Amino acid sequence: MIVGGGFGGMNAARALHRADAAIVLIDRTNHNLFQPLLYQVGTAALSGNDIALPIRSIFRRQRNVTVVMDELIGIERDQRRIRLASGNSLAYDTLILATGSVYSWFGHDDWKQHSTALKTLDEADLLRNRLLDAFERAEIATDPAEIARLLTFVVIGAGPTGVELAGAIAELSRHTLSRDFRRIHAPDARIILCDAGPRVLAQFPQHLSDYAARRLQSLGIELRLSCQVGAVDADGVEAGGTRIPSASVFWAAGTEATPVAHWLDVPPGKHGLVAVGPDCTLPGHPEIFVIGDAAACQGADGKPLPGLGSVAKQQGHHVGRIVAARLAGGTPPGAFRYRDYGQLAMIGASSAVADFGWIRLTGFAAWVVWSAVHLLLLVSARNRLVVYINWVWAWLTYGRGARVITRPLSDILPDRDPEAGGA
Amino acid sequence: MIVGGGFGGMNAARALHRADAAIVLIDRTNHNLFQPLLYQVGTAALSGNDIALPIRSIFRRQRNVTVVMDELIGIERDQRRIRLASGNSLAYDTLILATGSVYSWFGHDDWKQHSTALKTLDEADLLRNRLLDAFERAEIATDPAEIARLLTFVVIGAGPTGVELAGAIAELSRHTLSRDFRRIHAPDARIILCDAGPRVLAQFPQHLSDYAARRLQSLGIELRLSCQVGAVDADGVEAGGTRIPSASVFWAAGTEATPVAHWLDVPPGKHGLVAVGPDCTLPGHPEIFVIGDAAACQGADGKPLPGLGSVAKQQGHHVGRIVAARLAGGTPPGAFRYRDYGQLAMIGASSAVADFGWIRLTGFAAWVVWSAVHLLLLVSARNRLVVYINWVWAWLTYGRGARVITRPLSDILPDRDPEAGGA
Repeated sequence: MIVGGGFGGMNAARALHRADAAIVLIDRTNHNLFQPLLYQVGTAALSGNDIALPIRSIFRRQRNVTVVMDELIGIERDQRRIRLASGNSLAYDTLILATGSVYSWFGHDDWKQHSTALKTLDEADLLRNRLLDAFERAEIATDPAEIARLLTFVVIGAGPTGVELAGAIAELSRHTLSRDFRRIHAPDARIILCDAGPRVLAQFPQHLSDYAARRLQSLGIELRLSCQVGAVDADGVEAGGTRIPSASVFWAAGTEATPVAHWLDVPPGKHGLVAVGPDCTLPGHPEIFVIGDAAACQGADGKPLPGLGSVAKQQGHHVGRIVAARLAGGTPPGAFRYRDYGQLAMIGASSAVADFGWIRLTGFAAWVVWSAVHLLLLVSARNRLVVYINWVWAWLTYGRGARVITRPLSDILPDRDPEAGGA
Repeated sequence: MIVGGGFGGMNAARALHRADAAIVLIDRTNHNLFQPLLYQVGTAALSGNDIALPIRSIFRRQRNVTVVMDELIGIERDQRRIRLASGNSLAYDTLILATGSVYSWFGHDDWKQHSTALKTLDEADLLRNRLLDAFERAEIATDPAEIARLLTFVVIGAGPTGVELAGAIAELSRHTLSRDFRRIHAPDARIILCDAGPRVLAQFPQHLSDYAARRLQSLGIELRLSCQVGAVDADGVEAGGTRIPSASVFWAAGTEATPVAHWLDVPPGKHGLVAVGPDCTLPGHPEIFVIGDAAACQGADGKPLPGLGSVAKQQGHHVGRIVAARLAGGTPPGAFRYRDYGQLAMIGASSAVADFGWIRLTGFAAWVVWSAVHLLLLVSARNRLVVYINWVWAWLTYGRGARVITRPLSDILPDRDPEAGGA
């Protein structure tokens, strides 16, 4: 029984492809989503379909896998059963939990309704709608203060997602939309990137952070570092003691684990993570594995492993092999060891930073590597082709094909009376 | 002042590209939508972005056009002003109304909430979500009657949209999804196409209708013709006196004009259409034009012109030329004459019917023509390329790239308590 069809769960099921097992793969959605490119869906460069693949089609030929679209709501460890949102209850022999993480508003649930996060396709779609709609409403607004508020975009969190999102919004306003409007001047849009920490891309080496900060500033993005967010409301944010009127606040700050600890009835660690042994099993329960963003697993250096797709992928493969060996009566592999292939972050349209340990790249070279790596990591050939065409097209024309507002206004402006209309 | 950025409004603005005029083009959405392919978005063959183009980018270089995303709510004919949903009010010298049509539930507004129509990108997205979700829920359901209900798809209306939609659902269940599920057998899905009239594609010649009916039946679609719909509710439909339990009712039956007659304070004709003179002006108001699906215009043979994109397109071009000639002090062209280039409808994956008057095609030949014509009619080169790749890919693999459920369950099942979960 595998819960979660992300990188972790998918690779666990794949590693079991020869096993004599009845594998049930459960996910809330019907698709595997390539999260690293989600910000491009949110900023109108790609369509959601280009970076998602139906889980069923991935396992169409692997006949020992049954895919179930349902949501986990509880685990009965003693009976070895899980309970699902549909009302169904399923028994398991081995349980692999790869349910990932969700955005955390640090206990400020009221901030959530006034900011847009970027974790699912639906949210990316909403983010794109809100972003484009802000420009449209600014074009027809008459009050200068309201126009300024509509053209102020605040991104909270300067990790890879926040940096990539701010860079993409800058490209959108400076280039793609530059000649589209007649009354407002889209390139004048104010983009503010806030973080509580002292630097952007804190998990990268200092000189790559410095390079990224300079690049972001050259795109006209205002950096507010060491800046604590005090409030997020319908009129904007309060950051570092200053009030910033803004109609568009995007949240890329913190994540926490899905409620795995609660389901398993174990005490949650920092950010809700579940502490697991070196082989990713729950202590005292060799039949329960927790992997990916939901697990607190130590690396070879004793430090906790980061919440990256590559960690989840390798852990999924590892636990799949453990289960396969157990079923076949062989010797299971021992402790999980993470092979760090490095990390990448894109800044605007043709620049990036890359840290592979043995080599560190910035600028155009890093961007070429970034593009190639992300294309190769996409799950299907069709997605690779369509994303590649979209990128080449955008690079040649600065156009963004997905620049379409699809949602009704009541979705875009949930705070307001749907009958009240635009500006 | 042009209201509506569809085929009519867009071509009117384009025909004025050399005019010394300040053109304001108003649309509720930010994009021009290629309606004839919308059913492919609804059935997961294409992404919405592939068939839509931002109106601003179409007119980026035509500097006499200002695009406004806003919604018309009223016209003051005497003051020559229009009122918009944003609260703004704009004055005009000449007004071209190209606001199109909306689906009509024949006064049964309660049917609307239990069926999904196909007119906007948002609706196509919802239709795709509901269609795919029905298969997912059938896979986890346990009650055989409920499984049968979930696997019954009813399309109401056997015009081109209904025929194309039913054919695409058949392809999806018979081929694309055929090996994806383990418990249900997707090709067993029941697809029922109902129409109140005695034949499918009633606007085509009889023998093409007969051909289409045979093709639809060979795809396993049940035809219910001369069949009056008596009720549409949460459990299914009542059609021709029989109860059909179904979780997915798709509405492609009737359209009516947007409330142009109400705005203009003139008596509406059949389906809410506004009667216009041969030059498409409102009688007594040479400064007001009504074109496209909202206008009742007579053809050369005295019969009313059909509600087709090609009529709207040609009328837009015609009234644009009239206005340009008036502004330049020249002689405006006279009455509008529709050039009928024929009509096309696709049936399933590789068959179609085509009626060009001088030649009538069926089957594969018609399908080749259908594909070529639709590709050429797409507005941008990027969209042409991406749609072409998706088609070739689908044709080679029977795959559908956009097979992704993105919406939360509360959107997909509006009738139900969002907390109650799936099956």
